[in-house]
Amino acid sequence: MAVYKGPMSDKKKIYKPSPVSGFPEWLPEVRIVEQQWLDHIRKVFESYGFCSIETPAVEELNVIGAKGEDVDKEIYVIERLHKDENDTKEARLALHFDQTVPFARYAAQHFNDLVFPFKRYQMQKVWRGERPQAGRMREFYQCDIDVINPDNLPIAFDAEMPAIIWEVLSSLPCYNPETKKNVPLKELENIQIRVSNRKILTGYIETLGIQSEEMKAIIFRTIDKLTKEHLSPLIVGMHEALKECNEDPSIDTEQLTDSIMEFIKIAKNKFTNADEFEDALKFNSEINTSNETLQKGIEELSAVLDNLSHLPEGAVVADLSIVRGLDYYTGTVYETVFTEDPTYGSICSGGRYDDLAGSYINKHLPGVGISIGFSRLFDRLRTQGKLPVSRKCPTDVLIIPPRDEADLPKMKDIETTLRGRGINVEIAHGKKMNKQMAYAEKKGIPYVWFPEDDQVKDMRTGEQSPADPHSWNK
Amino acid sequence: MAVYKGPMSDKKKIYKPSPVSGFPEWLPEVRIVEQQWLDHIRKVFESYGFCSIETPAVEELNVIGAKGEDVDKEIYVIERLHKDENDTKEARLALHFDQTVPFARYAAQHFNDLVFPFKRYQMQKVWRGERPQAGRMREFYQCDIDVINPDNLPIAFDAEMPAIIWEVLSSLPCYNPETKKNVPLKELENIQIRVSNRKILTGYIETLGIQSEEMKAIIFRTIDKLTKEHLSPLIVGMHEALKECNEDPSIDTEQLTDSIMEFIKIAKNKFTNADEFEDALKFNSEINTSNETLQKGIEELSAVLDNLSHLPEGAVVADLSIVRGLDYYTGTVYETVFTEDPTYGSICSGGRYDDLAGSYINKHLPGVGISIGFSRLFDRLRTQGKLPVSRKCPTDVLIIPPRDEADLPKMKDIETTLRGRGINVEIAHGKKMNKQMAYAEKKGIPYVWFPEDDQVKDMRTGEQSPADPHSWNK
Repeated sequence: MAVYKGPMSDKKKIYKPSPVSGFPEWLPEVRIVEQQWLDHIRKVFESYGFCSIETPAVEELNVIGAKGEDVDKEIYVIERLHKDENDTKEARLALHFDQTVPFARYAAQHFNDLVFPFKRYQMQKVWRGERPQAGRMREFYQCDIDVINPDNLPIAFDAEMPAIIWEVLSSLPCYNPETKKNVPLKELENIQIRVSNRKILTGYIETLGIQSEEMKAIIFRTIDKLTKEHLSPLIVGMHEALKECNEDPSIDTEQLTDSIMEFIKIAKNKFTNADEFEDALKFNSEINTSNETLQKGIEELSAVLDNLSHLPEGAVVADLSIVRGLDYYTGTVYETVFTEDPTYGSICSGGRYDDLAGSYINKHLPGVGISIGFSRLFDRLRTQGKLPVSRKCPTDVLIIPPRDEADLPKMKDIETTLRGRGINVEIAHGKKMNKQMAYAEKKGIPYVWFPEDDQVKDMRTGEQSPADPHSWNK
Repeated sequence: MAVYKGPMSDKKKIYKPSPVSGFPEWLPEVRIVEQQWLDHIRKVFESYGFCSIETPAVEELNVIGAKGEDVDKEIYVIERLHKDENDTKEARLALHFDQTVPFARYAAQHFNDLVFPFKRYQMQKVWRGERPQAGRMREFYQCDIDVINPDNLPIAFDAEMPAIIWEVLSSLPCYNPETKKNVPLKELENIQIRVSNRKILTGYIETLGIQSEEMKAIIFRTIDKLTKEHLSPLIVGMHEALKECNEDPSIDTEQLTDSIMEFIKIAKNKFTNADEFEDALKFNSEINTSNETLQKGIEELSAVLDNLSHLPEGAVVADLSIVRGLDYYTGTVYETVFTEDPTYGSICSGGRYDDLAGSYINKHLPGVGISIGFSRLFDRLRTQGKLPVSRKCPTDVLIIPPRDEADLPKMKDIETTLRGRGINVEIAHGKKMNKQMAYAEKKGIPYVWFPEDDQVKDMRTGEQSPADPHSWNK
């Protein structure tokens, strides 16, 4: 290992560091809540049988497959500060910007060692070289689950995703600043998981005579923006784009645009089951609901919603305006919103894809997955003062060392006994009692123990009472 | 968010990814053990009141303070794949290569928001751009604890470090391939924490008339290499280096070398308390033990060892040959070895420093810390087949869906009840019972539940018995 003089070596020259934009870090009291959240999410994921994987921070640039698209600008490459000729012989490495690409590469590379259906969760940081601006993070946690299976994967897994996400999100530990009480997220915010199936819109477009992939993409992209932007300029833009690329003289793009607006109008209503939607479509005599793809989409969406009937009303709804921006989704798609703040965008999204790792292996791996934008959600609640921030350390009990050295072995016994029972213990430093008590108070340590007479003080109530380290509970 | 076509978009061109040298990743069954280890370490750290912090993967290059030293070659810088003119306006960023520099920067930056003594742990990946070679990792976990306090920090904290490390390492969950039993690490390997105090060697060198910092550094570096290299070429090299830089005609470098060899001879013995060492020094009439720094060192080392008398014999010993390579250590120093494989080097090291963050803030922050080389230790036991690898997923119970649809609500009840009781449950997919059972077997799921008649099969013993989801325990 190299001899490094470290940050302590150069006393005279002080370099005052400033926070690096887009790379947030928390004080210990906030970090404790972040850990609670991560633990909670992990516990729910595991309770459904998902196993953890962790992939390196980097992938080969070839794997990330940069293709000159928008996302390229967000890719961070890494290189050694002092390169030598050997460096050019090795593959270029880039920090991963999501967990889907690394998972696809992992599934391809370890295919023969995995048992299918393979259900994995992944909770790591990802990096995106965005321009610095308020609220935009360049480093953030994502929490992903995916199930993949060679050749085909039952639709039941599409229903499992919203069930898991509802369990995760609804019970995230939060704080209500008005009532000053700790509450689960569902008591603080109205969260709603919105499900759709891309086959419905695809089938509908086909009934309008559209075959062109380019035109389909324009329509999908317009509908994806529905909740985020104003409707009329969107529609005008869509019409112009469609007109420009339409090569089929039998298609009247104005009429096409009207038909899509019909779909949008219906789609903007929320349905609790897919039949309601089908009825609404049928009510519009212009719409042909017999298209096979559209029927398949309605069937799949119905199956998903039927499987979720045990969730509270409004937790999951069908929303045909959900289509997702990513091209690889082929069936079920999900978004999750705060219903009272729809412009905030989705906090948890995903969907069904036909093939995960086709770029890396000659296998057909369909799957379904969903991803929680952890850091974005966490930071929103943090800035709103809605996190249960209290203690600055995990210590449950601060032991005040006895004045008489003869009592030291007794103190050691208490310390060992409590710790052995899963209670977090610290020995107070220094000699002055008022400073020791101030330390407990400042760090939010709830109990102080006096070994001489086995008295415990509850720092929140001020009450003091005798206690036995073998039976005392926090 | 950019439209990214993802890994699924280009079926025809297959790019077969290969593992990236130095960036290890594990199969799910190994990852489960890695998580157990990380959970265990975190639990012990927290049981002593250490709070978690997590810092970004990157620091400003100015903070890392690259100074043209050896470590520079190991620094990875990051930059956007497609830079524009704005990029040059921002500070250059580098991946952190340890957790001490980020902690020092964190302590300086958040100084006013922290409560002292500040006890933090940090368990993150660090990156070092080493040349690829067997066993050398470029990305690995470190698990660090440090305590810092403005102006002074009681010596009791120096004793707490080995106590915590002993508790962590001795009970890491392992597997004995000979007895085929799961055992804690202490029953598999003889681990020993070796403690010394730099003041002893510093004081001793001073009694030999050495004032030159350069000569001191040569001697420290030589003694640091003691366990790793052969003695005689080391001593020859040290003598030549000392001769070259000696400017004091009153110092005979040959005699100096002999005196240092005397120290080495004594230092190579292990002592269980510092008095034994002082006696050994005194026995050598040439050695003047009245030097103030040396006395202070012996006093501090004695205090540390006295505080650790509750640990098993041999868990912690005084070893005066421990000096550590890093210049910033000033008192207590630690290394941890497998006593039967001394050439493997230290798996957990650290020490006392006079000032943590002097480069970043005009405060005096002495502290003491220690760091577990987590990934290196984990990978050693993994390649030796000494990890308790068994299950490939966290699922405790696989429920076989009933043939009769009327029983589906009953299945749902069982699933919800078990999960609510903290048991990890999966519903089997597919329809063929033999395939469902094979899935449980291949993934190492210990129990299979048949809802129709509430029977549970233990997959390891093959026994089947009736069970109530409200009271059944795994």
